[in-house]
Amino acid sequence: MTEPCFDIAHLAHVELLTNKFEESLDFFVNIYGLTESGREGNSVYLRAFDDYEFHTLKLTKSDSTGVGHISYRASSQAALDRRVAVIDEMGCGIGWVDGDLGHGRAYRFNDPDGHVFEIYFDTNKYVAPEGEKSALKNIAQRFHGRGVGVRRLDHLNLLAQDVEAIELFMKQALGSRVTEKIVLDDGTLAACWFTVNNKTYDIAFTVDHTEMEARFHHVTYAVDQREEILRAADIFLENGIHIETGPHKHAIQGTFFLYVYEPAGNRVEIANAGARLILAPDWEPIIWTQADRMKGQAWGLKTIESFHTHGTPPAPDDTWGKT
Amino acid sequence: MTEPCFDIAHLAHVELLTNKFEESLDFFVNIYGLTESGREGNSVYLRAFDDYEFHTLKLTKSDSTGVGHISYRASSQAALDRRVAVIDEMGCGIGWVDGDLGHGRAYRFNDPDGHVFEIYFDTNKYVAPEGEKSALKNIAQRFHGRGVGVRRLDHLNLLAQDVEAIELFMKQALGSRVTEKIVLDDGTLAACWFTVNNKTYDIAFTVDHTEMEARFHHVTYAVDQREEILRAADIFLENGIHIETGPHKHAIQGTFFLYVYEPAGNRVEIANAGARLILAPDWEPIIWTQADRMKGQAWGLKTIESFHTHGTPPAPDDTWGKT
Amino acid sequence: MTEPCFDIAHLAHVELLTNKFEESLDFFVNIYGLTESGREGNSVYLRAFDDYEFHTLKLTKSDSTGVGHISYRASSQAALDRRVAVIDEMGCGIGWVDGDLGHGRAYRFNDPDGHVFEIYFDTNKYVAPEGEKSALKNIAQRFHGRGVGVRRLDHLNLLAQDVEAIELFMKQALGSRVTEKIVLDDGTLAACWFTVNNKTYDIAFTVDHTEMEARFHHVTYAVDQREEILRAADIFLENGIHIETGPHKHAIQGTFFLYVYEPAGNRVEIANAGARLILAPDWEPIIWTQADRMKGQAWGLKTIESFHTHGTPPAPDDTWGKT
Amino acid sequence: MTEPCFDIAHLAHVELLTNKFEESLDFFVNIYGLTESGREGNSVYLRAFDDYEFHTLKLTKSDSTGVGHISYRASSQAALDRRVAVIDEMGCGIGWVDGDLGHGRAYRFNDPDGHVFEIYFDTNKYVAPEGEKSALKNIAQRFHGRGVGVRRLDHLNLLAQDVEAIELFMKQALGSRVTEKIVLDDGTLAACWFTVNNKTYDIAFTVDHTEMEARFHHVTYAVDQREEILRAADIFLENGIHIETGPHKHAIQGTFFLYVYEPAGNRVEIANAGARLILAPDWEPIIWTQADRMKGQAWGLKTIESFHTHGTPPAPDDTWGKT
Repeated sequence: MTEPCFDIAHLAHVELLTNKFEESLDFFVNIYGLTESGREGNSVYLRAFDDYEFHTLKLTKSDSTGVGHISYRASSQAALDRRVAVIDEMGCGIGWVDGDLGHGRAYRFNDPDGHVFEIYFDTNKYVAPEGEKSALKNIAQRFHGRGVGVRRLDHLNLLAQDVEAIELFMKQALGSRVTEKIVLDDGTLAACWFTVNNKTYDIAFTVDHTEMEARFHHVTYAVDQREEILRAADIFLENGIHIETGPHKHAIQGTFFLYVYEPAGNRVEIANAGARLILAPDWEPIIWTQADRMKGQAWGLKTIESFHTHGTPPAPDDTWGKT
Repeated sequence: MTEPCFDIAHLAHVELLTNKFEESLDFFVNIYGLTESGREGNSVYLRAFDDYEFHTLKLTKSDSTGVGHISYRASSQAALDRRVAVIDEMGCGIGWVDGDLGHGRAYRFNDPDGHVFEIYFDTNKYVAPEGEKSALKNIAQRFHGRGVGVRRLDHLNLLAQDVEAIELFMKQALGSRVTEKIVLDDGTLAACWFTVNNKTYDIAFTVDHTEMEARFHHVTYAVDQREEILRAADIFLENGIHIETGPHKHAIQGTFFLYVYEPAGNRVEIANAGARLILAPDWEPIIWTQADRMKGQAWGLKTIESFHTHGTPPAPDDTWGKT
Repeated sequence: MTEPCFDIAHLAHVELLTNKFEESLDFFVNIYGLTESGREGNSVYLRAFDDYEFHTLKLTKSDSTGVGHISYRASSQAALDRRVAVIDEMGCGIGWVDGDLGHGRAYRFNDPDGHVFEIYFDTNKYVAPEGEKSALKNIAQRFHGRGVGVRRLDHLNLLAQDVEAIELFMKQALGSRVTEKIVLDDGTLAACWFTVNNKTYDIAFTVDHTEMEARFHHVTYAVDQREEILRAADIFLENGIHIETGPHKHAIQGTFFLYVYEPAGNRVEIANAGARLILAPDWEPIIWTQADRMKGQAWGLKTIESFHTHGTPPAPDDTWGKT
Repeated sequence: MTEPCFDIAHLAHVELLTNKFEESLDFFVNIYGLTESGREGNSVYLRAFDDYEFHTLKLTKSDSTGVGHISYRASSQAALDRRVAVIDEMGCGIGWVDGDLGHGRAYRFNDPDGHVFEIYFDTNKYVAPEGEKSALKNIAQRFHGRGVGVRRLDHLNLLAQDVEAIELFMKQALGSRVTEKIVLDDGTLAACWFTVNNKTYDIAFTVDHTEMEARFHHVTYAVDQREEILRAADIFLENGIHIETGPHKHAIQGTFFLYVYEPAGNRVEIANAGARLILAPDWEPIIWTQADRMKGQAWGLKTIESFHTHGTPPAPDDTWGKT
C-alpha cells in the first residue's frame, strides 16, 4: 500500500460564469448571504463569513453560464512543486498564471473533460476590516445573518463524459481519495466523490448525459445546522428563487441538502454534513449500485429528473428559464 | 517554513477508568448511547454508531477514575515507523504492546505529565453484525436512537502541570498543530488545543490547579446537530445525571457543548462543531487573553467553578459525589 | 356575527383498528415512542409523554384497519350538555356509553360519512406512577427518549364522500371553526381543516376518491422541534418502516411533516407547527385553489399519489403491503 | 365548578417606552426583525411577520423606559361588553379611548399595581402591501429573514408589589387562568403565570423587589424553533446587544429562552415553547416551591441576579448602562 498523499490542502475557490451578472450578484450577496471582498475587471470576489481566504467564489460576467476555473490550495510550497511536477508529467498542464486579488501564482491544467483547474500555495488571507470583524476572534468575519448566511465553501459537482478517466486523473493529479461512487450494472462509473482531506468530499463528478464538455453541475456552501437549510427554503421561496429539490438527506454521503438555481441558471446547493468526516486513512470507497439508487434519497425522495438533465452551460434542449 | 506533518491520522480511542463499573457502563450504553463491541478482562469496548473502528472507548474497572491510555492511529505503517523513531529519540517511549481487541501492535509513550499515549496503524475495522447494519451503507453501524445517540468520538481534554512542555511534546511527538490557546497576562500557557487533521481539535490540555499528575478532564463525542444536545440535556435530567454546565457555545473553538459527570465522576461532554473545520495548512493559532476569558463563553455564560477544580481521579478536596 | 363557540375544549383521543396487533403495538411503543397506560379487552391504551389524560390512542385488535371512534373533551359539564342537546336535535346521535379506562360517560354520534364521534367531560387525568414522573413537575410524564418520542396528540385526518356536509356538521355539532380549505375550480370542497381551540387544526377531512365510507387518512402526534422529525426519519429508515413522503413543509397550515405507515397500514404522521396558532377569534378561512395545489407543498415537493389513494381500511385496489 | 371564561381572545399588543428612540427602533427592526406598520405622533407601530393584526408593539418616545399600556383583544363585541361591565363593577376602570392606528375603541383600566390595560374588539387586521405578501397565503406577511426574525408576539412579564392582588384581579377582570406559580415557604405568591387561551401563558407577574409601581420586566416574541434562538444569540453577540442570560430552558413553563436588553434597557426575550399547550379546560396550577427554585432552570442554570433586580423604568440603584 502506498502512503496517502497530503499535498493538496483543500478546495479553495470556484469561478462561476453568469450572463445575468447583476441578478446573480444580488442572489449571492442578499439571498445566499456571501460578502463581496473586492472586484476587478468583469469579476466580483465573494466569500462566506468563515472562509479564511480572500474569496471562495469568483463571479464573472460572461455571455453564458457554467464554471470558469476550479482552484485548490496546496499544503506547502514544496507540496505545490511536487504536484506541478506530477501534472506536468501527465501532460495536461496549461502553465502558470499570476493569480488575482485572492492569491499568488497558480499552476493551471485541464481535467480530461476540459474543465480548468489550478493549484497554488501563496494566498491572500482575509483580514476583516472594521465593522466586519467578528466578536469571536476565531471566526474570519462577522456573522451578519443576512439571507441564508452560509458558513464556508463546501464542495463542487462537475459533469464529465468519462468519469473513469476523471477518477484516474484526480487520484494522480491531486492525490484525491475516492470516498463513494455509483457503479452501474454494466460497470460504468456513473458518479464519483473525491476528497483531499477529512471532508467526506470536496468534489464530485457525474456523467454528462449530453455530449457537451466541461460542464458544471453545482457548487455548495456549508451551513452549521440542518435547521438553517429549512430556514433557507423559506427564504428562497419568499424571494422567488427556483427550488429544484429538497430539503432532504442524500443516501450518498448522508448530506442534508437543498438545491436551487441562481438567477442565471447555475445550480447552487446548501448542505450540512453533521459531524460526519472521513478520518480513516485507509477508507474503502462505498459502492452504490443501480438497485441502491432506485431507492431514491435516504428517506425515499426520488431524484428529480432535472438533476440528470440540467447543467450549465445548458444543453440546447434544456427548457429551464426559457418560458 | 517546514511542511505540515500528516503522519498521525486521528485520535482513535480512550481508556477510561471507573470505580463504579456497572453504573458507568449503564450510563455509556443506555444514556449516552454507545454500543458494546466486546469485553475482555476488566474492560468493555464501546463505540458510537459511526465510529469506523472496533471501539473508541475502553471502559476499565478500576479502584479509581481517570484515563488509562490515549490512542492515535497513524496514517500508514511507514508514518507509524517515522513517529516511533522520533518519539524514541525524544526519550519518552515506553515500548510496544500487542494491542487488544481493537487493534494490532501499538507503541506506547508518556507525555511530560505522565499520561500514557499509544500509536498504531493495524486496526480492527468494525464490521456490523446482522441487526446492527445500517440501512445506509456509508454508516458504520445502525443508528439505533437509544439515549443521546452520539455519532463518533470527537476529542479529549487532559490536565497537566506544564502546558508549555505539553505543547512542545505534542508538536514533536505527534506532529500536532496548535489551533487555539489561552495565554495569561504573565505569559503562562493556561490551555492549548491541538489537532492532527482538519478537526478544529482532537485534544486539549489545561493547567491542573492541583499538584496531581496525569489527570483527566473530559472526553467528548460529537452529535450531528445542536438540537441533539438540547435533547440530551432532557435525557440527562430525566435520568438523574449531574449536568455540570451548558448547553452553551464555547467562545474558544465555537463548539456547542454540554458537560455531565458519568456515575463514577468522569466528566463527559457532548459537542457539535457545526461546519467549522481547520482547512488552512498554515493556520495561525488564536490567542485568548485573560481579558477575553473574563467575558465567559460565547454568549456570556460564566465558566462554572467546578470546571477548574474537578478532574479525575479527584483531588482530595473535591467534594463531588461525597455528599 | 354570532359569538364563537368554546364548548368543546380539544380533540381527546382516537381509536385505531389494526389487524396486526402485536406489530402495531411494537411500532407505537418502541418506534413512535408512546407509553402503555393500560389494557382491557382487545385494546391497549397509549399516551404520549405530555398528554394530560390517561390516553390519547386506543389501539384495538380487529380484522381490519381504520378508525374506531374519535373523541373530543368538552370544556365543562354544562358545555357538554349544551352540545349533546344540539347534536340530539341534529338527529345524528347514537347515545351515551359508559366510557372506558380513560374517561367517564360519553355521548356518541355519527358524522355524515358514518365515522363515530364521542364527547365527554369527566376524564381520568394521568397520574404518573413512580419511575414515570418527570423531573419537571409541569410535564405529565417523564421524557424517556425512546424512539421518536412524540410529545402529544395533535390532529386527525379523515376521508369523507361529502366534505360540504362535513363542514356543516362540524360547525354545528362541535362548534368547530374552519381555518383552511381546498376549493376546486368546479366549487367542490375537496378538503377542510377544523379547530375548536387555538391550534391551527385538530381535524381535517378530505374527499374520499373511493365509494367507501367512514375511512381514516391519518393520525398525527406533535413533536417540539422540526429536528425531531428529521431524526425520526432516520429511526423509521433503520427500522424498516415505510416512509410515504416527507420530511417537508405543508403549504396548507405550514406544518412540517413526515408520513409513515404503521405495520398494519394505517397512516401516521409526525408534525411540528412551530409557533403558529390561530389567535384571532374572527379568523377568515384560507382558501386554496387548484392552481395553488399545483405548486405542491411549501417548498415544491409534489404530493405523492398514494396520499390520494391510500386510506384505511384499504380500497380493494390498494396494493400497499400486498407484495 | 364555574365554567371557564373565553371572553378574552388573546394578548394583542404592548406599548413600550424608550428614551433612546432611534436606537430602540433600529434594534427592533434590524436586529429583532420586526417590521414597521406605521407611525403617528411619538410612536412607531411594529409587527412580527405572522402577527395578524396591524401591530403588536407600539414603541413610544419617552423620557424614561417601561411599559405604556397592555392590550388584549376580546372574543367578540358581546364578550367585550361583558368584560367592561365586570371591570367597571370592580372599580378599576379608566374609561374608553378612541383607539389608534391599530384598532378601534378600547376600554382602559388599571391593575392593582397601576399598569394600564385595555381591551377592545374592533381591530385593524394587517393587509400586506405588495412586496410584503408572503408566498404562502396563510402567513400574514412575508418572512424576510432580517435579523432574528421573530414570528409573533408571545407574552409579557410585569413586576408588581402584590402578586396575590394581581392574581385575583386577572381572574376577575380578564377571566385569566393561572397555569403555574411560585409560592415561597412563607406563603407569599412570588410569581404567577396567566393565560386566557391555549397558550401556556400570555402574561406573568413577578414580585417587584423595589417599592416602585407599574414596572415592566420583559416582552417576548416567539420563534418557531429553538435553533432560531441559538442563531439569535450570535446575532445579538455580533451586534453588541447585551445578552443577560440564556439560551437555556426554563423549568417553569419549559420555555426555551434568551434574554437581552434593547438599547434603552427594556428587557426583551425570544422564546420557543415547542408543542406545549394548555388544552385541559380544568388545568390545575403547577406550584413551584423555594426548594424547586433552588435547582435553577431546567438544566441547572442558576437564575442571574439582574433578573431579580433589573426592571424598567430602572430603580435608582440599577447600574445597567450607567458605566
